[in-house]
Amino acid sequence: MTNPISFYFDYISPYAYLGWRQILTLAAEHGRAVEPVPILFAALLNHHGHKGPAEIPPKRVYIFKNVLRIAHRLGVPLQPPPSHPFNPLLALRVTALVEDAQAQRRLIDGLFTATWGAGAGVTDPYLVGAIADQAGLDGAALVRAAGGEEAKARVRQSTERALALGVFGVPTFVVDGELFWGCDALPDVEAFLRGEDPVSAALLARWADLPASAGRR
Amino acid sequence: MTNPISFYFDYISPYAYLGWRQILTLAAEHGRAVEPVPILFAALLNHHGHKGPAEIPPKRVYIFKNVLRIAHRLGVPLQPPPSHPFNPLLALRVTALVEDAQAQRRLIDGLFTATWGAGAGVTDPYLVGAIADQAGLDGAALVRAAGGEEAKARVRQSTERALALGVFGVPTFVVDGELFWGCDALPDVEAFLRGEDPVSAALLARWADLPASAGRR
Repeated sequence: MTNPISFYFDYISPYAYLGWRQILTLAAEHGRAVEPVPILFAALLNHHGHKGPAEIPPKRVYIFKNVLRIAHRLGVPLQPPPSHPFNPLLALRVTALVEDAQAQRRLIDGLFTATWGAGAGVTDPYLVGAIADQAGLDGAALVRAAGGEEAKARVRQSTERALALGVFGVPTFVVDGELFWGCDALPDVEAFLRGEDPVSAALLARWADLPASAGRR
Repeated sequence: MTNPISFYFDYISPYAYLGWRQILTLAAEHGRAVEPVPILFAALLNHHGHKGPAEIPPKRVYIFKNVLRIAHRLGVPLQPPPSHPFNPLLALRVTALVEDAQAQRRLIDGLFTATWGAGAGVTDPYLVGAIADQAGLDGAALVRAAGGEEAKARVRQSTERALALGVFGVPTFVVDGELFWGCDALPDVEAFLRGEDPVSAALLARWADLPASAGRR
């Protein structure tokens, strides 16, 4: 049995959307399952005292152009959601509640499409329920349960697990314990899966103890 | 006459090194000159209140792996400098003083190699002078001048120009007023040079006025 590829994501990230549109095929080609792990990106930023790409005005504009270029290259439809940033917690919690892998995959597809594929967003409980219904789930029950302690704990615990692993951004792919960050890391994921990752412990050792000779005030 | 491609860089960045190793050929293939603009990356971070990739511990480790993977793919030698972060100001100021384009290119080559190509780094004035000598310049005079007001003003003004353009990271390539960030943006630079950039004003307009419906505390 091979390990699944864990896909740490937040609907807030267009890169996570573009990563989701590629990882299922890539994983299948290498006989791997995908384990989607919904996490709160804002909590990663808070933990690391970091700013998100949308929080630096010129970077925000650049990111929009960058994702349009990647989407064009991949042939994936991409439209901005009704608002951004938005609160992704309802979508994350609903996702975390679904145990059946196939149904969860359909739900994630639907929620990502609603966010980045010219949909109506994922902040309205009624719309999120309808997306869950279309995925073959009981949308009303899921949306209700998303307000409960169990749903909140699942997303919080997944986010803490991500932080413990060293995840600092989304999407992050974890393959056999190795982290790959960003949808542009998929060629590296593929090389790793083929056993052709050029990074070795010997190579890394040279970088591990690199002293700093300057720092910012 | 076509505009040169401006290359905003700091020796501190391995991505700038990997970008430098590619941009000259790419520019030449499209009949463009390259205008190297040495800037202080730390000043960009200070301005945007942002953290550099080496300032978030798990990201620092990831970045090292990521640049090793890119270097391997490109066939470019990559070794860590003697220390990192280090103070790049001497190297930036020496670079900014050189007016002759060919000599400046040789100097940048030498300084980047000293930093990321298994060299002795670029913080020792004697070594920086020797690299300038090898580039056909008067190293001792340049290193002396790097301590003067003119050299300091050049790097400061270039950095301010970068900030005014919306540069938030290095390397940044500016082609006909369009910014491209990161050495992984070179395929986008190439598409732009071919007149095949998929980003249009009409597409961008949809993103420009996107309202925020949530923010971090």
